[in-house]
Amino acid sequence: MAERVLDRIEKANDIKKIDESQYAQLAQEIREFLIEKVGANGGHLAANLGVVELTMALHLVMNFPRDKVVWDVGHQSYVHKILTGRKEEFDNLRQFEGLSGFPKPAESRSDAFGTGHSSTSISAALGMAAARDLRGSRERICAVIGDGALSGGMAYEALNNAARREKNFVVILNDNNMSIAKNVGGMATYLGKVRTSPRYKALKVNVENFLTKIPKVGWDLAVSVKGYKEALKKLTLPNMLFEDMGFTYIGPIDGHDVIAVRDALRGAFAMDEPVLLHVVTKKGKGYPFAEKDPAKFHGIGPFDPMTGKVLGEAKKTWTSVFSDALIKEAEVRQDVVAITAAMPDGTGLAAFEKKFPERTFDVGIAEEHAVTYAAGMAASGFRPVVAVYSTFLQRAYDQMLHDVGIQHLPVFFALDRAGIVPHDGETHQGIYDLSYLNTIPGFVVAAPANAKELEEMVHLGLSHPGPFAVRYPRGAAITESFGEETPVKLGQAQVIAESDEVMILAIGRMVERAMQVRDALAVHDIDAGVVNARFLKPLDEKTILETCKQAKLVVTLEDNEKTGGFGEKVEVLLSRTGSHVPVLNLALPEGYLVHGDTTSVELKYRVDLESIVKKILIRYSDIK
Amino acid sequence: MAERVLDRIEKANDIKKIDESQYAQLAQEIREFLIEKVGANGGHLAANLGVVELTMALHLVMNFPRDKVVWDVGHQSYVHKILTGRKEEFDNLRQFEGLSGFPKPAESRSDAFGTGHSSTSISAALGMAAARDLRGSRERICAVIGDGALSGGMAYEALNNAARREKNFVVILNDNNMSIAKNVGGMATYLGKVRTSPRYKALKVNVENFLTKIPKVGWDLAVSVKGYKEALKKLTLPNMLFEDMGFTYIGPIDGHDVIAVRDALRGAFAMDEPVLLHVVTKKGKGYPFAEKDPAKFHGIGPFDPMTGKVLGEAKKTWTSVFSDALIKEAEVRQDVVAITAAMPDGTGLAAFEKKFPERTFDVGIAEEHAVTYAAGMAASGFRPVVAVYSTFLQRAYDQMLHDVGIQHLPVFFALDRAGIVPHDGETHQGIYDLSYLNTIPGFVVAAPANAKELEEMVHLGLSHPGPFAVRYPRGAAITESFGEETPVKLGQAQVIAESDEVMILAIGRMVERAMQVRDALAVHDIDAGVVNARFLKPLDEKTILETCKQAKLVVTLEDNEKTGGFGEKVEVLLSRTGSHVPVLNLALPEGYLVHGDTTSVELKYRVDLESIVKKILIRYSDIK
Repeated sequence: MAERVLDRIEKANDIKKIDESQYAQLAQEIREFLIEKVGANGGHLAANLGVVELTMALHLVMNFPRDKVVWDVGHQSYVHKILTGRKEEFDNLRQFEGLSGFPKPAESRSDAFGTGHSSTSISAALGMAAARDLRGSRERICAVIGDGALSGGMAYEALNNAARREKNFVVILNDNNMSIAKNVGGMATYLGKVRTSPRYKALKVNVENFLTKIPKVGWDLAVSVKGYKEALKKLTLPNMLFEDMGFTYIGPIDGHDVIAVRDALRGAFAMDEPVLLHVVTKKGKGYPFAEKDPAKFHGIGPFDPMTGKVLGEAKKTWTSVFSDALIKEAEVRQDVVAITAAMPDGTGLAAFEKKFPERTFDVGIAEEHAVTYAAGMAASGFRPVVAVYSTFLQRAYDQMLHDVGIQHLPVFFALDRAGIVPHDGETHQGIYDLSYLNTIPGFVVAAPANAKELEEMVHLGLSHPGPFAVRYPRGAAITESFGEETPVKLGQAQVIAESDEVMILAIGRMVERAMQVRDALAVHDIDAGVVNARFLKPLDEKTILETCKQAKLVVTLEDNEKTGGFGEKVEVLLSRTGSHVPVLNLALPEGYLVHGDTTSVELKYRVDLESIVKKILIRYSDIK
Repeated sequence: MAERVLDRIEKANDIKKIDESQYAQLAQEIREFLIEKVGANGGHLAANLGVVELTMALHLVMNFPRDKVVWDVGHQSYVHKILTGRKEEFDNLRQFEGLSGFPKPAESRSDAFGTGHSSTSISAALGMAAARDLRGSRERICAVIGDGALSGGMAYEALNNAARREKNFVVILNDNNMSIAKNVGGMATYLGKVRTSPRYKALKVNVENFLTKIPKVGWDLAVSVKGYKEALKKLTLPNMLFEDMGFTYIGPIDGHDVIAVRDALRGAFAMDEPVLLHVVTKKGKGYPFAEKDPAKFHGIGPFDPMTGKVLGEAKKTWTSVFSDALIKEAEVRQDVVAITAAMPDGTGLAAFEKKFPERTFDVGIAEEHAVTYAAGMAASGFRPVVAVYSTFLQRAYDQMLHDVGIQHLPVFFALDRAGIVPHDGETHQGIYDLSYLNTIPGFVVAAPANAKELEEMVHLGLSHPGPFAVRYPRGAAITESFGEETPVKLGQAQVIAESDEVMILAIGRMVERAMQVRDALAVHDIDAGVVNARFLKPLDEKTILETCKQAKLVVTLEDNEKTGGFGEKVEVLLSRTGSHVPVLNLALPEGYLVHGDTTSVELKYRVDLESIVKKILIRYSDIK
């Protein structure tokens, strides 16, 4: 086998030893490496294929770990990881105890800042630049942000704040005309105009010619020479929005031309002012399947590199159960509308949109706006459904309280990816939602034990005269029934089995686990009852008190952090009513959970079936 | 006394009967009315003085309550209230059970949407516009947003989302070149340029001439005539940032010229597209004291209209205790920096800024950015202090968790206005912070019982190797000492008095109340002990368990909502450790508290001294 150029890159800055003539080959090898490794483990492919040359250029100009790049969202940092000595660890990408799919300072000093959620990079990098300038050091600092993430208001807050700086600060706009889905909004339209204008096409040639003609060593000098900067500006599009904001704009540059990007970066870093470098890339670049369907290859499970086909069989997911249920409601109710923050596929709204395009609103990556927009629609008599991942709804905490809660508006929140979100890890865990939703007055908070309950909760929530949130996990829906089927009613738990020994109170997907625990305890001659709580809020206090009255031990089960969650609510209830029955609260620990497959993560935090049974046996043996 | 023009306005739309020749007089009378009423009760004066003519113009063009205006932040809605039949209620402005200082649908059908926090108006109004167009109705809808609020990212998310509409949607930019403090950032610089450009001065005359020449009845027609719109556009500044975003821009218009604004509004409402109407106003307009110092007259207590002097004596506030403590730390530590989201005065950072201008960062109204910016600085070795009101920090919940918490960065959060925020009411209550901060892993959460503890907590927090939040109320600081003074140590409570009868566990300012309760119970021959918790998190479990061991009743006291707060943490602790001592959890109810003076609000929710004592006596009599 011929030696690869990639094999010569063993640690940060090794790329600087590669000859210019080999850049194209290196890019090709990185792409092959990405397709192979992500094919085996799953991960974010399309975004990484798009930034191969951009990342190479960054590494040619910057020195890691001294210099700092903050990757917005961070799922496009694989190439950066490859170029900073982590190539060998890609066999364990996103696996338990393996390489993280996101930048992580604890993993490498070359990862300046951890990311995962959108639109944070400019703020973090700007804070670092302020620190640098206060200290008087001179490291290069930049943020790399996609045009999709630019619809997040926080990015704008940061741009607005950066504009008045008089020291260097570089924002690289990685413009691929995509969020996860197709981009929307005024900014997207604007960038589209820039990219397609005839002037751009002429300018593109000019800018790139100009840039490549300046000898490497001449850049710092060139910028300091009066008149140069004006010359550069004249080569770019005039009257730009970013110029209006106070940024010096350079671009657009072809993001798949390593040398052009490298040279533009040199220029950008040499200016004593905020600079926006506009780089145009193609998501999925170089892998036909991903170029054709970048949304599919955005975050993907293991797939066959030869065919692009995803491995493993498709089961009906919670997401599609929700999606079907919502469509069913909307078919008979004209007032039901749906809102997504740039995730029609992930949240299941794509199917809804197909049927009801005029009742679907994709507001871009903008969770805060999404929620208050929904509040506006609710105040006007509609029944908006905000479909969003549990972790991203954190961003709209204030909007839920201030815009929806105070006015008690009937907004329905569908929280997907609640509980453990396996391979993405820390930044994406959905284990805080029961806790934070619980603190917002007037919200109903529900969690279904199976698909049928989710359907019923969608129906119930859309008739409820106030805010209503339902949360459910990622992955295949539970279709099994537990106990005697009883219809979902507001604030009512389902009693599956009673017991005067151990009563297990479970919520959401943990009801299934409770049933398994019940079976396992039966082997030990312990009779366990199970209550499916269905609602965190309002909590069915009556049923809980009645079923726990005779029990010797109460066990609570949830896939949420222990602090402020379901179990604590039960503990408070029992304590307040003078019940002295001991409670074993089994939840995820308060903390930030590592990534990996769900089984490994559950094992680590001892909420797997065996650990749960063991804990109950130990505790119960003390009591009996 | 001569009849005022104002007296002829008794309900919505009455203004339409006033002759144009009397607009100036009406404006003058409204100003006098505002100065008198706010002088008596306190309130937001400067912003309302600035929008007198703008509001008049809105009421000349719109029909309330059919048409809808969403007031961003909402504290500038007094004139709107005067013009919609609420004039007589101004004697009770912001008083208990009196008129709210913010728009409130429950108060009047002319208030389309409740506001209080910044930058929400465009989202809410856009949701309403989407609802209107889906329904096919034709009411006029607009948002009125200040240039300060435009630095909030949510406003940008909404602008970005609105840009692609093909139906009418009007955003009125009320540009007074101010947030509460002086405006900052790229947008502010940009708007400044627009206002001061020589072209604007020439255009101003042209635009206004042009607008006033179109007869009233001709507006709808004029807009529909091809070429008119282009003519209007030519009169305004070219290549505008807002045009780049996709908005049709009209302006700038003199916001103190009723007729010019009215006519521009007619034009704006007649277009089938998103329109941004740029109106230039002066905060404090017409009241020399407020024009000179709009920040002082932003939100102000009762004052003497003749002299502009604030009534009542100045006491040392919690804010200034924090401010002094921070300055003291910064004098010996170069790494301490401070960040505010446009509130240097309210948060006490103004004094800090005076001493350390290069270490103070006002990022504009942008709490999300503020927190992640701080995270960036902390990741670079600095000790950033984010000084913010409790209620506004809600907006950065995700940033605290995702950017600060996961990376365990040493960011210090100073939460002012925690607990009951009397006259602002529902939208500004600081009663959720203990609950929401509790849910974020790795945060220290502290609350001082007196000024000295706040100083010590500032010192402690700035040496703590992770996130540290301290919350304290509005108003005069408590300077009294309680019990034997012990230095503040991480996670340690202070035992003020022990008892084997009633143990009161209190946090923050409620420690003083606990001491009063103790005195009151002594009269009933009940010996009450008091523990000053100091920390919600980590909770001093050892001290709490020890001091409660012998007690017959444990009482918890906090000025936070009951749900997820301090008392529930104590209940869980006691329950988990098998303690069977009854707990009386006295907190604010889960809900949205009304406005009014603190005494009335406490009485209403029965957390005043007398109610607390009564509740304890009743409960204790059951136990004894």
